[in-house]
Amino acid sequence: MMAVNTEFEEARAGASRRPATEPIRCVGILHHPRKPESVTLAEEMAAWLQQRGCIAWLGSAWNEDAVHARLEAEPGLDLLVTLGGDGTILRAARVGAHFGVPILGVKMGRLGFLAEVVEPEHWQEPLAGILDGHYWLERRMMLAVRVLRDGLAVVDQGEVLRYQALNEVVVSRGSLARIVRVTTAIDGDFLTTYAADGVIVATATGSTGYALAAGGPILPPELRNILLIPIAAHLSLERAIVLSEGSTVSLKTVADHQVILTVDGQFEVELQGADLVQITASPDSADFVRLRSPSYFYRTLMERLTWNL
Amino acid sequence: MMAVNTEFEEARAGASRRPATEPIRCVGILHHPRKPESVTLAEEMAAWLQQRGCIAWLGSAWNEDAVHARLEAEPGLDLLVTLGGDGTILRAARVGAHFGVPILGVKMGRLGFLAEVVEPEHWQEPLAGILDGHYWLERRMMLAVRVLRDGLAVVDQGEVLRYQALNEVVVSRGSLARIVRVTTAIDGDFLTTYAADGVIVATATGSTGYALAAGGPILPPELRNILLIPIAAHLSLERAIVLSEGSTVSLKTVADHQVILTVDGQFEVELQGADLVQITASPDSADFVRLRSPSYFYRTLMERLTWNL
Amino acid sequence: MMAVNTEFEEARAGASRRPATEPIRCVGILHHPRKPESVTLAEEMAAWLQQRGCIAWLGSAWNEDAVHARLEAEPGLDLLVTLGGDGTILRAARVGAHFGVPILGVKMGRLGFLAEVVEPEHWQEPLAGILDGHYWLERRMMLAVRVLRDGLAVVDQGEVLRYQALNEVVVSRGSLARIVRVTTAIDGDFLTTYAADGVIVATATGSTGYALAAGGPILPPELRNILLIPIAAHLSLERAIVLSEGSTVSLKTVADHQVILTVDGQFEVELQGADLVQITASPDSADFVRLRSPSYFYRTLMERLTWNL
Amino acid sequence: MMAVNTEFEEARAGASRRPATEPIRCVGILHHPRKPESVTLAEEMAAWLQQRGCIAWLGSAWNEDAVHARLEAEPGLDLLVTLGGDGTILRAARVGAHFGVPILGVKMGRLGFLAEVVEPEHWQEPLAGILDGHYWLERRMMLAVRVLRDGLAVVDQGEVLRYQALNEVVVSRGSLARIVRVTTAIDGDFLTTYAADGVIVATATGSTGYALAAGGPILPPELRNILLIPIAAHLSLERAIVLSEGSTVSLKTVADHQVILTVDGQFEVELQGADLVQITASPDSADFVRLRSPSYFYRTLMERLTWNL
Repeated sequence: MMAVNTEFEEARAGASRRPATEPIRCVGILHHPRKPESVTLAEEMAAWLQQRGCIAWLGSAWNEDAVHARLEAEPGLDLLVTLGGDGTILRAARVGAHFGVPILGVKMGRLGFLAEVVEPEHWQEPLAGILDGHYWLERRMMLAVRVLRDGLAVVDQGEVLRYQALNEVVVSRGSLARIVRVTTAIDGDFLTTYAADGVIVATATGSTGYALAAGGPILPPELRNILLIPIAAHLSLERAIVLSEGSTVSLKTVADHQVILTVDGQFEVELQGADLVQITASPDSADFVRLRSPSYFYRTLMERLTWNL
Repeated sequence: MMAVNTEFEEARAGASRRPATEPIRCVGILHHPRKPESVTLAEEMAAWLQQRGCIAWLGSAWNEDAVHARLEAEPGLDLLVTLGGDGTILRAARVGAHFGVPILGVKMGRLGFLAEVVEPEHWQEPLAGILDGHYWLERRMMLAVRVLRDGLAVVDQGEVLRYQALNEVVVSRGSLARIVRVTTAIDGDFLTTYAADGVIVATATGSTGYALAAGGPILPPELRNILLIPIAAHLSLERAIVLSEGSTVSLKTVADHQVILTVDGQFEVELQGADLVQITASPDSADFVRLRSPSYFYRTLMERLTWNL
Repeated sequence: MMAVNTEFEEARAGASRRPATEPIRCVGILHHPRKPESVTLAEEMAAWLQQRGCIAWLGSAWNEDAVHARLEAEPGLDLLVTLGGDGTILRAARVGAHFGVPILGVKMGRLGFLAEVVEPEHWQEPLAGILDGHYWLERRMMLAVRVLRDGLAVVDQGEVLRYQALNEVVVSRGSLARIVRVTTAIDGDFLTTYAADGVIVATATGSTGYALAAGGPILPPELRNILLIPIAAHLSLERAIVLSEGSTVSLKTVADHQVILTVDGQFEVELQGADLVQITASPDSADFVRLRSPSYFYRTLMERLTWNL
Repeated sequence: MMAVNTEFEEARAGASRRPATEPIRCVGILHHPRKPESVTLAEEMAAWLQQRGCIAWLGSAWNEDAVHARLEAEPGLDLLVTLGGDGTILRAARVGAHFGVPILGVKMGRLGFLAEVVEPEHWQEPLAGILDGHYWLERRMMLAVRVLRDGLAVVDQGEVLRYQALNEVVVSRGSLARIVRVTTAIDGDFLTTYAADGVIVATATGSTGYALAAGGPILPPELRNILLIPIAAHLSLERAIVLSEGSTVSLKTVADHQVILTVDGQFEVELQGADLVQITASPDSADFVRLRSPSYFYRTLMERLTWNL
């Protein structure tokens, strides 16, 4: 495997930006189940990879359990390629993080912040570059969340309520547009009781998602901070708080109506009155394969955020 | 009936601030069904009013149909007194507005923005003053909302979906914390498609409620403007727009998941894909009996909003 | 003179949108003194108008005193055409408002919100249409501001400190980036003391200018509301307040360092410690000649404001 | 010297929270030159310290050069006590940071975020505790800023323009309330050109100051992030960006009118057209002596920020 491009060699050494280290031999390709064109592309890509001596297998990004089972049964996967939008990448990233497998997002559909190959018709050149080792790994912090009831971890149908989030954890109102009260502690010390539509606890990755809509600041992806921000706070603390990686955020709802826990906008659980949601940095991280210069983030950001001028 | 206090005589004449004109003879008293102390107070108040030669009847503020039926059957009511919070006042105000009956809110519970008698134990002196004509009427604009499906008014179980709102009309996501897209027109001209948790169309009265939480401006109660503001807009128009009373706001949702119409935080209806929600100023207005100087609004506002200093 | 286009005939009658009424015979053309191309265009336009039997004269938009003197000496002007940006239009509009002369803004330079002819190379067709009466007048509220010292109007070098503003009046810090405290009353009633970089009092026209940057709502041009909003409020009231046309806003600064009064971003006066700045709606209004449909405002707004998508 | 209180012994070890290590023998006491009561208190405190075998000297917090010279001439100072507000503490902290001397803020005047002894009349008990070693040190990141002209460091009257900031560095408009354009790069990569009143680059400490007024997030004091946020951005990037400690922010103004560089709200320099302001984390840190539990920050924050309820 060759060295990374010289433009990255001088990149400031840090946990979040690492050069490629291992040759890529085994690739999983995850398509979007509702996009037939992603299945076609997955098959083309698998054939192309096999011609180059790689092992390649296909799966649905939305069937996370199956992907998880496969990675458990067949260790040694070097790369997960996703064909879809940010939602598809989020699903893959959570599984990939658990097994330490890096992700390459090929954009199919609306432009997000996570994909690296943004012109899906031109996937061969970047993929060839990656096989040649011309990439770097961007490590992104994730959140671990668990739900405690009466001080014990909640078990739902035999499963402990425990999740990983790459974007954010949200505790918010159900369908009725009515305020929830969320008592919040940082490292066990009472902070405040939010009266709001909900409270978001986000990563740097999530800072350009729901947290941005709630009025939060932007954190470049290498930051390992935890972001705490209410949604539509009413006569209560409105401002975002940026916390260090080592912090624990505890959320307890005080509501006489439905309150929902949502993880990465993909999983939702109805909370009960006395449930305590506890969020910390996850021991797992999501690794993204990057070809572009590390400054790609700000360029993408300004393309997406800047007012028309 | 005597003239209003001299301090109000010089008040700038305007549709929104009017002196008392009719002697008060017949009073309806609405209690909060979940607050037993409000029933007790309602009975005391009725006895006190009857001793002074008034007709007084009792009812539950939450049973709006019954209140509506009574006002229809027995016209000539001069005053509706509510014993509860802002929610109770909102319920009474919508019915009162329809029949042109002014509202007096006696606060029981959390302090809101609408109540006039804020120390419920001291209700006799203000009520005696009102019977003597020492009050003025604050007229507040309301919204009329109707739901059109395929260009026709929606009929649900024999009822046309048509509401009045004193605070606001909200079109928003259901329980899943996921973006809705709301295509919005003003006076028939396309404005924008919001990508957000929802869109609020509020009155001046509602500007200190949910619209405030969404980041909106504050409008004193006499303003007859319509306020349009998204909740947690994501990469779409974030700013509030203030419209004139004559404007029509049309909201059409484009979502593949649940979208809810909520009126004054009290009624909710699930919208269907092609439903069009049309909002205008209502021909009805809510009249509030006021004893305090018209500047009470800013004092209450600053008590509720100001940062601790 | 012909009737206005039928598309405007059905426009809701209102003080703010009026059809053309008088034939245009006499036109003043104001160029931007630092843009030589605007002088050339002014001369071409004058010749073109004279060929069509109009009287036309030229002047510098920045020499407001000269324009004022000319309008006083030669009454009967039907139209002021400005060749420049929003700054040039603001200067002309204040003078035009005083004499009841409508303004036509021809954009030269950065796109603003006020110009009607936005492709300066294609000025002949719109101007011909206007001479034929194919236009409507958009009436915009202005603000009147005066400075009182010890309760008396301030006279500076023989001039009373009294201004008109089409966009906004700002009371703010001088060059040192340090907080000013501005005690604010509405209709003589104390509202709050802002601790901020400054306080903006704006019209609907100004709502897309500095007030927007300060976080304020957007008001379409026909609104006759007064907007009050602080700049970078620190632990004091942050939200915009929307007031009715009849309101009086009084600002009094409490600072031990420089405080500046700025009008439309064009005039600035250093205030003294006890000065009181009093702002009301002006009896004058600025009339803008419009050719496009009244919905032009929202289209321009979204072009300027919308995030890139 | 005794160990710190057991409640702090279990505090998560980290660079930002350190136990007391050295006995305190030599104390400098800095008064506020405009507050005579601070001089009186300084003298009392010095006498009290000398009775306990300490060396104590007095000075004016505002005469930073003299304090600097003294610390240079007489190394070995163990503690700088400031008698004043946050402004006084900022002045002392910059000098103290340079010489590695910790700061104890005794509040005299308006409550800020930095003081540790908030009831100045009760200074003896906390000071006795500190002499006994019952304290911990809170380490706060500072910023280093330098001004480059034509790529070279600017020298003004023989001095290189180079500052340290504990709160923030601001590049902003002068006295005229007019937009400045600030071209901004992060680690040498172009981010955006802000059109705004100014741009703030702040520390966690500064996040509760001017940056908060500009709409920024709150960072607890131990965070070593750099915060970038515009003031009143007009049709340009509005959101705060949170950067890692290792980042370099470069600001270049594009303005035809006065632009000012302000450091900690205390020093100001007028910039020239092509000046480049370069900001990084400083190698120096400010150490604050703390007696209260590390959670004091959130308690103080909520006391200062929370809406009245």
